[in-house]
Amino acid sequence: MKAVVLAIGDELVSGQTVDSNSAWLSRELGLRGIPAVRHETVGDDRPAIREAIARAAEEADWVLVTGGLGPTADDLTRDALADAMDATMHLDEQRLAEIRAFFEKRCRTMAETNKQQAMVPDGADSLPNTAGTAPGVLASLHGARVALMPGVPHEMTEMFRRSVAPALPDGDGAIVHRILHTFGTGESDLGGMISDLMQRGRNPAIGTTAKAGRVSIRIVARGETRSAANELAERDARELRSRLGERIIGEGDETMASVLGDRLRESGETLAVAESCTGGLIGKMITDPPGASDYFRGGVLAYDNAVKQSVLGVRADTLEAAGAVSGPVARQMAEGVRQSVDADWGVGVTGIAGPGGGTEEKPVGLVFIGVAGPEGTEVHRHVFPGDREYVRIRTALAAMNYVRVGAASAAT
Amino acid sequence: MKAVVLAIGDELVSGQTVDSNSAWLSRELGLRGIPAVRHETVGDDRPAIREAIARAAEEADWVLVTGGLGPTADDLTRDALADAMDATMHLDEQRLAEIRAFFEKRCRTMAETNKQQAMVPDGADSLPNTAGTAPGVLASLHGARVALMPGVPHEMTEMFRRSVAPALPDGDGAIVHRILHTFGTGESDLGGMISDLMQRGRNPAIGTTAKAGRVSIRIVARGETRSAANELAERDARELRSRLGERIIGEGDETMASVLGDRLRESGETLAVAESCTGGLIGKMITDPPGASDYFRGGVLAYDNAVKQSVLGVRADTLEAAGAVSGPVARQMAEGVRQSVDADWGVGVTGIAGPGGGTEEKPVGLVFIGVAGPEGTEVHRHVFPGDREYVRIRTALAAMNYVRVGAASAAT
Repeated sequence: MKAVVLAIGDELVSGQTVDSNSAWLSRELGLRGIPAVRHETVGDDRPAIREAIARAAEEADWVLVTGGLGPTADDLTRDALADAMDATMHLDEQRLAEIRAFFEKRCRTMAETNKQQAMVPDGADSLPNTAGTAPGVLASLHGARVALMPGVPHEMTEMFRRSVAPALPDGDGAIVHRILHTFGTGESDLGGMISDLMQRGRNPAIGTTAKAGRVSIRIVARGETRSAANELAERDARELRSRLGERIIGEGDETMASVLGDRLRESGETLAVAESCTGGLIGKMITDPPGASDYFRGGVLAYDNAVKQSVLGVRADTLEAAGAVSGPVARQMAEGVRQSVDADWGVGVTGIAGPGGGTEEKPVGLVFIGVAGPEGTEVHRHVFPGDREYVRIRTALAAMNYVRVGAASAAT
Repeated sequence: MKAVVLAIGDELVSGQTVDSNSAWLSRELGLRGIPAVRHETVGDDRPAIREAIARAAEEADWVLVTGGLGPTADDLTRDALADAMDATMHLDEQRLAEIRAFFEKRCRTMAETNKQQAMVPDGADSLPNTAGTAPGVLASLHGARVALMPGVPHEMTEMFRRSVAPALPDGDGAIVHRILHTFGTGESDLGGMISDLMQRGRNPAIGTTAKAGRVSIRIVARGETRSAANELAERDARELRSRLGERIIGEGDETMASVLGDRLRESGETLAVAESCTGGLIGKMITDPPGASDYFRGGVLAYDNAVKQSVLGVRADTLEAAGAVSGPVARQMAEGVRQSVDADWGVGVTGIAGPGGGTEEKPVGLVFIGVAGPEGTEVHRHVFPGDREYVRIRTALAAMNYVRVGAASAAT
């Protein structure tokens, strides 16, 4: 049992709009044990849509299609399905009445062009749209079931839940996805530590994805039942946690900031930040989770050296001798903000985010992170690769990670 | 001349990650007059990748592929291309040296598994990756050119610009995209002001997209030559600027922060921020553009009331009488940071970002923005709809917009 997901529209294939429908549908299919093996996007071109549908129907048991069901001349998905089925179309009176009612309810008159939305290939069923005007279609082709749904995401999800999901069979058992997030270890080093789990063909399947210093590990477990799949996934998650330890920062929707926040809340400690090259990003990320006021006291954006001195008490002779981007300045920033804001943890960050400002001795990407805590102050030196945005995100995550690890050992 | 764009990865086809690379590449191709006619996504499955590449190469002149070039066992795009080319692979010593250097620069040792990243099908060229370890590949297959690029977006865009774009030919005619960004006027009001330009079938085609208070207006102009398309787009851009005036904040890659920065640089003024509910987001956004140190002095993250008092000098009686989320506190924050950091402009923001903390009198989304400038202080009250993230972004943009308009009038 497998599926192919198609998306139709010039705006997608030209790149004006990013298709998020296909990913959403794949997740829904996966939850039901039906893996999506392919996504395909074509423009508003009748032969191209017909070919994509026909090919998918030969390959898969289910073909889910979004887009191209609107009332205008470039909405051709219905016609293309009829072409692929070698069927004529008929007007579905009930759907037409629903479209009329949709407009009347909004004190508007239905345009004549909306009539084409109620056309259905002979032999197919039409699906009501409770959130818009474009009805869907459910048809059979080459032994596969083909569902056409609107491209507007909230109309699509509503129609999928009401009319398509109930028609889906139980797949061959169930697929459970879990995702664990690690930080600070490169993808290849991490891959080396878990290469036995990443063997192809193994169940669960394990894969990695890297993004800004975070490497996420996906677990995709197949089982005859949901609970069997869950059990397999849980076994691998435990194995990964035992091998990778503190490298794993969290799972699923957890982020560096949410996990750091949980640990500080647990340890009853507070945090303050002094940011130079990150310009506020660390504070922003720390306050992304609701309730951050439980542990975040605030801080200082010491972008200008004068602010480092006047508000944080960084010494002029240190700035002169070591330079603004230096370990001693990061240390004084961390200690200065910890003291001036009266927090348990103070973080001080200074660096060269680029693209300008680098020298041979102090290249772009050079960052010093000071972490002042109950047990004293540490300073860490990094040279991060990549562009300005990457260096800043990487710096913010590294800074939060030092406090995460520190706060954890304080809590135990 | 046409192109097909492929994306490779289990995380994409299973829906764990939304593919934005293909849309980005399609836009870049469109700018060069080469329409993308199809996107396809397959998982980390060697035969499936081989088939997708071979089919695309038969259909199109250019095939752009992202993903599956990493160092682990599930990175199979190189091998699949070699299969499609019926070629063996060889080790590219120069790429291997670059990968080694990448690790050495970061004081790390290259893992043995990274070696596979330097493998290239015989007869193909390898492309340097200046932002990561995965080199790309440029090959010929069935008369088409096939480019393999990494899936990590910033590595992909960097490699495309350096190594793939220069190899692309001029396509048939040209499509020019321009995009103007407005702020502060709703999408439907704005649509009413430019409805004549938004007629279907018109060239240029004009459309709008709304995001967090910003409404962007896309212009897509088609012409026989790049310069003819440019001229049509320029005519519409001028018309939009004349109708919408200060509502337009910038164009293309310009952002609220970059435009604000340009204006402050022009007026020779400096800026400081005092943030409560935004937690650092305003500073972060202001320092996104390189060179922000020309005008941004820094600021204070006054998340906790004690910090508002001790660092910014907000008065205890004001906090008690009006509450932390109030106009008088926003005013004192703006004036306090302007003075303590010695800047021409001070911004003070206090509000309830939610989801908790709202009351009947002070609901979630209530925000006060104080703007202290050379001519005095203004305070603006807003109630923004939406979730925590939306309220925070909306607040940051509104605060920057007040300074943008103020700095502009100061400059004239």
